[in-house]
Amino acid sequence: MTSIIPKIEAILGGEHVSTAEEDLLCYAYDATNRHYRPDAVAFPGNADEVSKILKLANQHRFFVVPRGAGTGMSGGALAVQGGLVLVMTRFSRILSIDTENFVAAVEPGVVTGHFQEVVEEKGLFYPPDPASASFSTLGGNVAECAGGPRAVKYGVTRDYVLGLEVVLPTGEIIKTGVRTAKGVVGYDLTRLMVGSEGTLGIITKIIFRLLARPEVVRTLSAVFARIHDAASTVSEIVRSGVLPRTVEYMDQAAIRCVEDHLKIGLPVDAGAMLLIDIDGSPSAVEATLGQLVPICEGKGAHEVKVAGSAQEAGELWRARKGISPALYKLGPDKMNQDIVVPRSRIPDMVEWIDDLRERTGLTIVTFGHAGDGNIHFNIMLDKRDEETLAKAESAIKELLRQTIALGGTISGEHGVGITKAPYIGMEIGTEELALMKRIKALFDPNGVLNPGKIF
Amino acid sequence: MTSIIPKIEAILGGEHVSTAEEDLLCYAYDATNRHYRPDAVAFPGNADEVSKILKLANQHRFFVVPRGAGTGMSGGALAVQGGLVLVMTRFSRILSIDTENFVAAVEPGVVTGHFQEVVEEKGLFYPPDPASASFSTLGGNVAECAGGPRAVKYGVTRDYVLGLEVVLPTGEIIKTGVRTAKGVVGYDLTRLMVGSEGTLGIITKIIFRLLARPEVVRTLSAVFARIHDAASTVSEIVRSGVLPRTVEYMDQAAIRCVEDHLKIGLPVDAGAMLLIDIDGSPSAVEATLGQLVPICEGKGAHEVKVAGSAQEAGELWRARKGISPALYKLGPDKMNQDIVVPRSRIPDMVEWIDDLRERTGLTIVTFGHAGDGNIHFNIMLDKRDEETLAKAESAIKELLRQTIALGGTISGEHGVGITKAPYIGMEIGTEELALMKRIKALFDPNGVLNPGKIF
Repeated sequence: MTSIIPKIEAILGGEHVSTAEEDLLCYAYDATNRHYRPDAVAFPGNADEVSKILKLANQHRFFVVPRGAGTGMSGGALAVQGGLVLVMTRFSRILSIDTENFVAAVEPGVVTGHFQEVVEEKGLFYPPDPASASFSTLGGNVAECAGGPRAVKYGVTRDYVLGLEVVLPTGEIIKTGVRTAKGVVGYDLTRLMVGSEGTLGIITKIIFRLLARPEVVRTLSAVFARIHDAASTVSEIVRSGVLPRTVEYMDQAAIRCVEDHLKIGLPVDAGAMLLIDIDGSPSAVEATLGQLVPICEGKGAHEVKVAGSAQEAGELWRARKGISPALYKLGPDKMNQDIVVPRSRIPDMVEWIDDLRERTGLTIVTFGHAGDGNIHFNIMLDKRDEETLAKAESAIKELLRQTIALGGTISGEHGVGITKAPYIGMEIGTEELALMKRIKALFDPNGVLNPGKIF
Repeated sequence: MTSIIPKIEAILGGEHVSTAEEDLLCYAYDATNRHYRPDAVAFPGNADEVSKILKLANQHRFFVVPRGAGTGMSGGALAVQGGLVLVMTRFSRILSIDTENFVAAVEPGVVTGHFQEVVEEKGLFYPPDPASASFSTLGGNVAECAGGPRAVKYGVTRDYVLGLEVVLPTGEIIKTGVRTAKGVVGYDLTRLMVGSEGTLGIITKIIFRLLARPEVVRTLSAVFARIHDAASTVSEIVRSGVLPRTVEYMDQAAIRCVEDHLKIGLPVDAGAMLLIDIDGSPSAVEATLGQLVPICEGKGAHEVKVAGSAQEAGELWRARKGISPALYKLGPDKMNQDIVVPRSRIPDMVEWIDDLRERTGLTIVTFGHAGDGNIHFNIMLDKRDEETLAKAESAIKELLRQTIALGGTISGEHGVGITKAPYIGMEIGTEELALMKRIKALFDPNGVLNPGKIF
């Protein structure tokens, strides 16, 4: 790599390339908390520079790993085989927001939450809302097909990407998709790129479709003695035809953990809590609340609270968003899975997890996007305790097997990366995997881009 | 081919293979009204048979062209280079409708309209609604990524496909996607298949997501003296945050043509008409109507009518759906384009088309999905009149060039097939086309499946 650095510097300018130990250390991590030291870090500023670097990589056969804010949960941004980490945060411009046609063009380094705010100020709405939205960048959201709580009503990142500019692993800069509401000309390269976890190309521009900003959002919480009642409430809500903006749930362990951390008066004896947002016109939202409250009560909720103000709603969401950090009270290490089951199987899955907890004695906390059947399953442990680690690893294998058995998928929004790569064969068949590998080889014949991921 | 027929018969049984002239003639056509006689026609009954036929095709190098109901508008189902037409209409079962999880599994030969009715009886909703829904089959809808009037609110076929079973051109049977609301494991083969126009595989099963059936649908028509006022009404509606189920428009030529055909009292002196459906809960629909009527009036509509009954609404829709057949009053041949421009550019496009009509003297009728910017542009002519034909061909080239100049796409829902293949280079760049061709070659190394399409 040492001999290559001057060539990279010649492309980017010396100030945008580093091999300083502190930089290598900073860009060795992502949200998986795993650690792979790259050989160098570079900060390109435009697609042309990215293209030149990828051509150089093919010529000299070094690995290139694109990276946004590093908030990914499956290791997509990690240089697991060393090489050059390409930090895309200089691609930070919102290029245009078309308030007539509800279309925006952005660079991949724009922070998700910032983009949301800017479009909302213009009366528009970008629904995808991953938990890391305050830090995550849109390029990573697209590469991983990020989800979030609002997916139950609004879908995931994929559903908002109209087109892309992408640098292929071999250096060609291509444009995919359209800027219009519809478009079916040629193969759908756009959606092949979305969720390909930075293995088929480096995104340098994104065209998003937007919606009109809903006029009002109201938040409702419902507390249940038994998690099964919460789960069957979710089924009943969906069956009723109501489509809330979010239907989140927290189990007892999650409630206790957050309350211990934030002290906001959560019901620590409850079996589960639902957190439901409704949006739309004021009259529609009122009407929906009028339907939801009796559904929750009919299913045994012993406390249903409609937040009276944005502040009250914010407090409730602070609890939900506080779970992930609060979990570390239960152990220094987290092993998390973002499984999805068909919505109606949530009660079965919850029961199965209860049994798993009992059988193994592991510290298991679950919460997630109940409206989608997307359960965030967390084992909190100290990985230095080898016995517990082995038990946790075997529990996860069991969990994923059970997920597949219930007709589910092993990842709803985090992607495969390195964390789920050992398990991909549980879900994807041999022929299908072989085809995906052939596609990877077609795009990246020398295997220079983001190696060691997915497969 | 003669020597191959017994082998195909051995796979399917003799009663499911034909070389009879009347069958070859029947399956030589589709909705483009072009004519390519295949060498044989076969009717497979399951994925395994399709697989065996494709393996045979690779062994003996004959062409295979999959076909549903043949309602496609770009020639996707035509055996342009001869070979075997594989008619998928025996795949006609709705395999399951899961009313808990809003998911259905169907075979590709199910008629779209039949599927819509069956799911609506169960309180569910399959929104994609191509004009040919009463005849078209779902496999073709997926292969072409069919759209239709409801796309403005509900998106296109792509947005409802969760997963597929597909026989690859080389005969492997693969499963793609999920049965859950979310899923990001591996490359998105599902959406690579959607809209690939039967060139990357033959669909043998489809997993659709469904919605809850909207409680009520109301229809509103608005008559304008000038088409520009109708166009700017559409912009105003979208800007207001209202999301109707459909926003269709007809120009004066279309109105006159339908009225002449159906005699239902349409305003033949009007410049344009909008046909707007709103759906949702009764209160939400009432509220929306309350917003829409003043918007239309404010933009100069001189007649705004809210249909009082399903029958009245049906009458209005009969006019809209009657356009395509009625057009043949204006000429024995139709050359149609389904261009899309950014919604806000519809007035510019309409003005440009007016000018084109004046400059060329061609009989041009436009109508379409104004809410998406999707304009159906039709030249009615007698193709035996060579001078007019040449003028029409040159007008279409101009139209597509203007579409691209306005930031649009040359096909919103019909696909490329053979009709737009000569123009694909106007929209898709050289690198992108080369990549698509490499993908085609990867999937279909011997080029046996649906040759001569797209590229």
